[in-house]
Amino acid sequence: MKHTNADTSEGRRKFLTSLSSLVGTSMVIPIPGISLAENVAQPLSVKEVIDIILKEIPGAPFPKTVDQLITGTPEQEVTGIVTTMFPTVEVIEQTAEAGANMIIAHETPFYNHQDETDWLEQDEAYQHKVALINKHEIAIWRFHDYWHRHQPDGIIMGNLIKLGWEKYYDPSQPRLLTFPEPMPLKSIVALIKERLGISTLRLVGNINQECRTVYLAFGYMDSKMQIGAIQTYQPHLILSGETREWETVERVRDGLQMGQKTSLLVLSHAVSEEAGMEYAATWLQAKVSDTKVMHIASTNPFTFL
Amino acid sequence: MKHTNADTSEGRRKFLTSLSSLVGTSMVIPIPGISLAENVAQPLSVKEVIDIILKEIPGAPFPKTVDQLITGTPEQEVTGIVTTMFPTVEVIEQTAEAGANMIIAHETPFYNHQDETDWLEQDEAYQHKVALINKHEIAIWRFHDYWHRHQPDGIIMGNLIKLGWEKYYDPSQPRLLTFPEPMPLKSIVALIKERLGISTLRLVGNINQECRTVYLAFGYMDSKMQIGAIQTYQPHLILSGETREWETVERVRDGLQMGQKTSLLVLSHAVSEEAGMEYAATWLQAKVSDTKVMHIASTNPFTFL
Repeated sequence: MKHTNADTSEGRRKFLTSLSSLVGTSMVIPIPGISLAENVAQPLSVKEVIDIILKEIPGAPFPKTVDQLITGTPEQEVTGIVTTMFPTVEVIEQTAEAGANMIIAHETPFYNHQDETDWLEQDEAYQHKVALINKHEIAIWRFHDYWHRHQPDGIIMGNLIKLGWEKYYDPSQPRLLTFPEPMPLKSIVALIKERLGISTLRLVGNINQECRTVYLAFGYMDSKMQIGAIQTYQPHLILSGETREWETVERVRDGLQMGQKTSLLVLSHAVSEEAGMEYAATWLQAKVSDTKVMHIASTNPFTFL
Repeated sequence: MKHTNADTSEGRRKFLTSLSSLVGTSMVIPIPGISLAENVAQPLSVKEVIDIILKEIPGAPFPKTVDQLITGTPEQEVTGIVTTMFPTVEVIEQTAEAGANMIIAHETPFYNHQDETDWLEQDEAYQHKVALINKHEIAIWRFHDYWHRHQPDGIIMGNLIKLGWEKYYDPSQPRLLTFPEPMPLKSIVALIKERLGISTLRLVGNINQECRTVYLAFGYMDSKMQIGAIQTYQPHLILSGETREWETVERVRDGLQMGQKTSLLVLSHAVSEEAGMEYAATWLQAKVSDTKVMHIASTNPFTFL
């Protein structure tokens, strides 16, 4: 599913407008040994963007990771970067409209974590998506394992910043928040709805509970790890993106019935990590100042009826 | 986790009340060669109940199945039978209160499909649950694979009967319903809420859609199978219990964006199969007329906020 690396300079020009204007003024002071004109004429390649990111990740590159270049080529010139949770058909369309050609996506474009495509060859949505990607020459790079391995975990930090909770982050226990005073679960629910823009949450627990400790399980987490965390930390609340209903959900329900205080709040997968990918755009923009980076939210796939 | 098979005749007596009354009347006609008094005095064992069920399942017993006796002993005398989706702590308490000592559960008591327990030894909810099971000498038998393999699938049929849709069941395509006329998705949602007692549903799709074909995926189904079914049948609606959000959910979302007509309605796992286990109680009662069978709903673990 690689495509030919054709000229995509139109989109790039769109993003370089502000810099080009700047070059045209007398305000620009040439730095000795660096040709400014050459800088403008030489946008980053996909590989250069990835390398810039990997420099920030402890232990990168990993020998085994889902964070691969799924479509496009490493040599492709980047006209603009979009971060998102799910590179949906709609996000790809919006990326092309914005004149960008690199999507940095947390999750799979092809409906499976390993991005396998053999089983989808006859699937019409897959065929449509690939045609769309090829038409617009979009490079999709997964930024899942590396972003979680960043110090601090970029998804967690993106959410904490939005919630105003980054001051409670403890690097020695990055998934466990301890508030100085108990916070009513009702207030936590209201805050999450407002700040993360989630219309409806699913609770296993007692809405009248007070929470002093919160275990962070945005996205999807292995249930044995979650259930182990309940036993180890006995948090008042688990903030989960998505979790198997016959595993963590039932363990939490049984715990509550026997008098334990751990409730579970399920946010839905996409919106539970979207703030982390929005944060990735800000974080990356500071490292690639000549390339426009924007976040396009893939939004919640669910309507609650 | 086996327990000693002590005398549990009190509960059994409670359930045999109606039959005992019957025996005390002159209406009872002794059948030659069968001592009625002996019948009353000889309740079924757990193994006998299981054998009665397995006689009805094509190909049973299966060499490999999760449908094992998880707690209790095969020899244990059955005082009453409870069917349920999840044998939660609450369901176990209610079973004991009802004087029953056999739970026929579709899903795992121990938060994993294989009912493994080694990893839970230190878990307090597990310890509490096992102590409760032992205290009340409850035999828990899984009725998952066999009930799905029944002809027709007991979970599907239980739901269809509740929805008044059993007339649309086609044995040659048991998961695909075709209505004679298109039905508004809004009406389907209202019907499911009312008949299956589900407060809130999650939709990936367009609520104003009309549906003529519905693909039934109650409980949890492998996403590759679901996505294959979208391609094969192009149903207007998938009725799902629980499904991975980065798999089927995103495939449906992309399909809708490209103009396909398949929407996805997610019911939540427990309540999507509860009607099937309620139906199991009725189905089994007819086969074990001297033993009381009742359904206790494990209910929806989620509150929608």
